[in-house]
Formats: sequence, structure tokens, C-alpha cells
Amino acid sequence: MTNDYALQLATSAKAASRDLLLVSGEAKSVWLTNVADALRSRCDEIVKANQLDLGRADEFQLSAAMVDRLTLTEDRIGSIARAVEEIRGLNDPVGEVIEGSVRPNGLHVSRVRVPLGVVFFIYESRPNVTIDAAALCVKSGNAVILRGGKEAAHTNQALHRLLVDCLEASGLPAGAVQFVDRPERELVGEFLKLNNLIDVSIPRGGRGLIERVSNDATMPVIRHFDGICHVYIDEFADLGKAEDIVINSKCHRPGVCNAAESLLVHSGVAANVVPSLAAKLLAAGVELRGCQKCCELVSEFVPATDEDYATEYLDLILSVRIVDSFDDAVGHIGRFGSGHTEAIVTDNVFSARRFTTLVDASAVVVNASTRFNDGGELGLGAEIGISTDKFHARGPCGLRELTSYKYIVEGTGQTR
Amino acid sequence: MTNDYALQLATSAKAASRDLLLVSGEAKSVWLTNVADALRSRCDEIVKANQLDLGRADEFQLSAAMVDRLTLTEDRIGSIARAVEEIRGLNDPVGEVIEGSVRPNGLHVSRVRVPLGVVFFIYESRPNVTIDAAALCVKSGNAVILRGGKEAAHTNQALHRLLVDCLEASGLPAGAVQFVDRPERELVGEFLKLNNLIDVSIPRGGRGLIERVSNDATMPVIRHFDGICHVYIDEFADLGKAEDIVINSKCHRPGVCNAAESLLVHSGVAANVVPSLAAKLLAAGVELRGCQKCCELVSEFVPATDEDYATEYLDLILSVRIVDSFDDAVGHIGRFGSGHTEAIVTDNVFSARRFTTLVDASAVVVNASTRFNDGGELGLGAEIGISTDKFHARGPCGLRELTSYKYIVEGTGQTR
Repeated sequence: MTNDYALQLATSAKAASRDLLLVSGEAKSVWLTNVADALRSRCDEIVKANQLDLGRADEFQLSAAMVDRLTLTEDRIGSIARAVEEIRGLNDPVGEVIEGSVRPNGLHVSRVRVPLGVVFFIYESRPNVTIDAAALCVKSGNAVILRGGKEAAHTNQALHRLLVDCLEASGLPAGAVQFVDRPERELVGEFLKLNNLIDVSIPRGGRGLIERVSNDATMPVIRHFDGICHVYIDEFADLGKAEDIVINSKCHRPGVCNAAESLLVHSGVAANVVPSLAAKLLAAGVELRGCQKCCELVSEFVPATDEDYATEYLDLILSVRIVDSFDDAVGHIGRFGSGHTEAIVTDNVFSARRFTTLVDASAVVVNASTRFNDGGELGLGAEIGISTDKFHARGPCGLRELTSYKYIVEGTGQTR
Repeated sequence: MTNDYALQLATSAKAASRDLLLVSGEAKSVWLTNVADALRSRCDEIVKANQLDLGRADEFQLSAAMVDRLTLTEDRIGSIARAVEEIRGLNDPVGEVIEGSVRPNGLHVSRVRVPLGVVFFIYESRPNVTIDAAALCVKSGNAVILRGGKEAAHTNQALHRLLVDCLEASGLPAGAVQFVDRPERELVGEFLKLNNLIDVSIPRGGRGLIERVSNDATMPVIRHFDGICHVYIDEFADLGKAEDIVINSKCHRPGVCNAAESLLVHSGVAANVVPSLAAKLLAAGVELRGCQKCCELVSEFVPATDEDYATEYLDLILSVRIVDSFDDAVGHIGRFGSGHTEAIVTDNVFSARRFTTLVDASAVVVNASTRFNDGGELGLGAEIGISTDKFHARGPCGLRELTSYKYIVEGTGQTR
């Protein structure tokens, strides 16, 4: 039964993804306009549905932070509508000629961007993601199957109704946005079997969810694992900039993936920077865990273990290690980093180049905060997630990362 | 034990892949020159090793065709050397700035091509693939673990020795080309577990091998499944060109993946083209299996079943269906095609555009043979395989498809 349900939704999505191939960019823009307008005009309906979910927060044992993330107000719905309008303004990736040439035999060859097809998107709480994901998938020519968290079931249902009403009003295939409105946990596994209908699965949530989807999926997965991000203060660093960058990387939003979790300091400058930086971090409420040398320099340090260096705290905690050389810093990052975002602070051009060459991460940052690894900040616009994989999509995944390509070969009767 | 062995090889490969990050394009070219020279100067040694394998052909029950594929002669070794020189001449993909911009806050952002890391390459017989794969992987900055077929064990061992000697002579990390010199079948499974050391697995061989690797791999896989390729003769086709294209697509090399397996003909032109084309195909030794209308037009047709339309013959057999409309042709391809190569013959610009838009395949060809879906013919140079996936790499996989990218973000102290 769950099997039939998944098959039916995925089959409808696949059919819609074919219909989307003939939909113009203009029609997709009309849909996005309609969605933004409907979010504002149907605000009451959404808030009412949201209150049903909030009324069940105790039943699901949601923390205060989780309740806050779940809550929709007129203001917040306005922000979601503005985000849709921003996505509308992004370049349509479909049909982009990535490259092209005329072969010696007269064949015209072009490599053209095409949608992936059907995206299965599995996510937890935050209901704005429902709208973001649908907007990004359909704008990039894909159909999407949305599987939200049970805490947000009523809200997501209302948002899905709005999305589909707008698809119909704009002449787009209504099946382009599917919503899994049944709660059974094993349903996810059924969808993950359908690799002939679903082209990619994107889990967005905790490590458990991502691991489960990675293990069970029979189609490609775009994964976002931990952000164990480092700032390395090189021996040639401007120490004033270094302090600002470390504080911003750690404290600006400690709960997000591109926040710094670990600080490495070259031993040649440690005595000049660790005490004053530690004082500022402590004043900002940061707990410091450090190597023996750190503890000797500043009494407030708690001794750090290897487990500390391997932990994504997502909190006001920072692990610190004093390293004897540039290579030790790169070695530490190779061992403990998660390939998300790594920063160096240095005035030396050779250190900078060597760091960007040797460090294997989705973003390698020189003299700036780790917080810049973000679709908006890097110029991609809205993102559906940040990939810690190296395959297909790395770092922020915007519209382009939701596409594939095909070769179009045009001839006049050529044979081999 | 097999476990330790796999771990040791993969660990060495990973270390070498890090060392390769600092190797210049020039040094890689020197290596490729040395490999080509050594293939010529050590020809006798390779032929001798090859004869040991050929001496065991009966033991492995190799067919005459397989023995031919396995056999190396001075001439064939010369071709392999020339292929290496061609790879040397291709653009180095590593370090290519794919795009870049300066953000409003002054951050310089560039997206730069980087190697994937370690490639696990599993292949059957044909020993030239050993050299090709190593050359493509190292040229694109990757370390490679080669797992060849047992029928070619001695030959591959000799070729691997040559590759490593040249790595050492050229100052490249000797661990960059690893060779699995133990025959145990379960070893492959051990390698497929090591997703912290191996970045991508590429199986090249029969469907069984590819399915096994896809199922067991814990890292991404570049897969090459069937090529069930169609030629569709549109109602607006130039029938002379259509005949040439069908004959070339079917008969030029019937055993390869981009050969046509199925022909669709618009009913409006069927009576004008099917009889004469059938006569030519029959004269070329092609067995014809067709729909009822085909059988009515030409008595030599054998009735085709749905299984015929779903079969990659890799032989001089062609399934044929007469369709009532353009949409029926596209529907048939959607149902039976494998997403490899699909061709239309038409003089009508709208049919051509609609076909290239709606048909979902790695290459969509207008008025030319399906045989052009090939790295060399499309201008990519040598390929390590042809992907039937839509994720990461689609169609011919050359140097570029063996790479990922990273964002490099350069600032002057920016924070958020």
C-alpha cells in the first residue's frame, strides 16, 4: 500500500517533469509571481494551519527553539514571498549552452543544460523550506516530491495547496509539486527505491536523516554532512584581521554549518594573538578548549581531546590548537576537517596559494570569515543546501546544481 | 587480510593524490612522454607477458574474439603509445577557473577545477585500457587504483611496472597508479567500502559488473549501462539521408554502445522508405524484426515483441516500428530508450527542436549517425567511458569529467 502510494506520486512527478520541458521561462516567472502574491493574500489560511501544528508542539516534544523555527507570522510569510521573488529574478539555467563548437566534419555540437528531472526532497521542520525548495526545483525545470517533518504537517499541507493552485492558475503541470501527506516513516524507503522515476534525493536535516537516505537511496544523493570548519592564523597573518575573522566565524551564527568550530594558530605568533583573542572570545561567551600550549598561555582553556577536534559543536564552543608549521595546520585540517569551509589568515601570497591548493574543501577562504560559504554570498542566489560531496555539486547548491546537461549534435547527413 | 590489502593500496593512493596537487602540468607531460617512449622501447617485455596470458586463454575459456582483444603486438603497442601522446596534448583541466567574480563587498570569488582525488577503476580484458585509464586519471590530477581482468593479469602487471617506473623517472608520486595484483573476487567489495579514501568508482564492462559495483559501492559511481539507441525517420525526412544514417548507425560497428538497435519510421513515409531500406539492410546481413505494419510491407521481417524493443542486441539485428506520429516516436523512445543516444532524421526545424528538447539522452542527434556519440567525435578527446547517468557526468567522460571544483574566496579581512 505505501508502495503503491509512493509509486503513484513519483509517476505523476515524472510525467510532470516531462511536461515541464515545454514550459517557457516566462510561464515559470508568472507562477513565481502568483506564489508570492498568494502567500501574502492567503496569509490567514497559512497562519491558521500553522497554529494547528503549534498546538501539537508538546505532543512532539519540540524545544522552544524548534517551536520558534516552526512558527509562521505575517512578517515571516512576507519574507518567504520576497525570497520567491528573488528566485524569480535569477537566470533560468535551462537551455543554457554551456559550450559549443563545429567539428571538422561540419557537425554542430553543443552541450546544453537540462533539468535533472524529479527531485525527492526530505527535510525537517522550518516551513519556509517548503516554498524555497518548490520554487528552486520548478524554476530549474524539475518536478519535486516534498517530504516534510510531521511537526509541520498542517502548515506544509496549506503551503502545498497554495503551490498547486498557482501551478494550475499559471498553466504549469499541477503534478510538478508533489507532497507526501502521509506520515509513515517507511514511506521514505519506498521512494528511495524508485530510481527509474526519481533522479536525485536531497535530504536536509540532521546527520541521522542524511545517513539513512544515503544508505537506502538507489539514486544519486546530494548530501550535506558536518561543517567542521577551521580558521588558521598563519605566521604571516595580520593579527588584527585574524581576531575579527575568528570572532565573526565563530560568533556570528554559531548554530550554522559554516561557523568555525576550530582555530589553528602558528606557534610563531601564538603568544601575540592567543591571549587577546581568547579574552575577546570569552567575553562573547565562547567556551575555549585547547591544546597544552593554549592552556599554558591562557588559564581559562579547558584541555581539548581529539574528539573535540572532530566535533561540530554548532554552539559557542571553540577548539584551539597551536601548530608548529604551515604543513602541520594543513595536516590537521586534512585529518579533522569535513571538507566544508576552511580559512587562512595570512599576508603572504605563497602561504595563501599553497593553502588554496592543498586544502580539500568546498570553499577555501583567504582573509575572510568562514561565514561567506553561502549561495547568496558567493553570488549563486538561493540554495537548496550546501553539498559536502565532491561529485556533481560541491558547496552551495543553487539552480545550476539542480541541472544536468545533454549533447545536441546537429548534422546534414554525416556518417562515420 | 584482503581487507588490509585494499586499505593499504587505497591509503597509498590517497597520499599520492595529495602529492599530485603540487605536480605541474609540465611534469605530467614529461611522464606521459616517458610512458609512450617506454611502451615502444619495452615492447618485447610487454609482448612476452602478454604471451603468458594468451597461453592461459583456454583455461579461462576465452572466445576467439576475446583472445583477439587480449592480444598485444608491436603494432598495437604503437597505437597505445600514440593514444598516450594524444592525451598529453589535451588541455590540463586542473586549475581551470570555471567562473569568477568580485562580490559587492570586495571578495574575489572563483570556482576552480580540482581533481576528484582517487579513482577506483574496474575493467575487463582489453589491456590498452590499463594505459588509457592511468594516463587520463593522472593527467587530471587523480590517483588511480586499477583492477583488471584475470585473463590479462600478466600483461597488466607488466604495464603497471612500466607506468610506475615512469612515475619514478619523472619525479611523480609512485603511488599515483596502484594495481590490484591479487585475483580474489571479494577484494572488489573491500575497495567499494572505502569511501573515505576512494572518491569515485568506475566499472567498465558488462551489465553484471556495473550492477554489482553500483549496488556495493559506498562512494559515487560513474556508470555505463545499455545503449538502446534509436533512429527516428520523421515524416519530413530526406529519405536518402535517412537510409545512409540508419545503415551507418546499425552496421558501422554493431557491437558498440552507440550503434542503433531500433528504428522508428513515421507512417506517412513508411511505404516510401521501409522496403528499399530493408533491402539494403538485409543485403548488409542485418536481421529485421518489425511491427505488424513492417511485416506487411516487407516479407523478410520477423515479428518483433516488446522484448525486442527493450534489447541491446550489439549485433546485426534491428528492431523496427512504424509510428503514427512524432509524439508516438518520442513516447516509444521514452519507454524503451536507455538515455544513451537518440537520433532524428528530419528537414523540419520544428521537429528537430522538439526532438532535442523532449528526448532525454546523453546525446540527441539531428540528421547524423548515432555513432558520433564518442569523446573523440564530440571534441573531448580520449574518454574513460560513456556515462548513461545524468548526475555529475553524462555521455563521454574525458579529463573534465574526472574533476570536481572548489570555491576560492579571497578577501582583505571581510566579516559578516
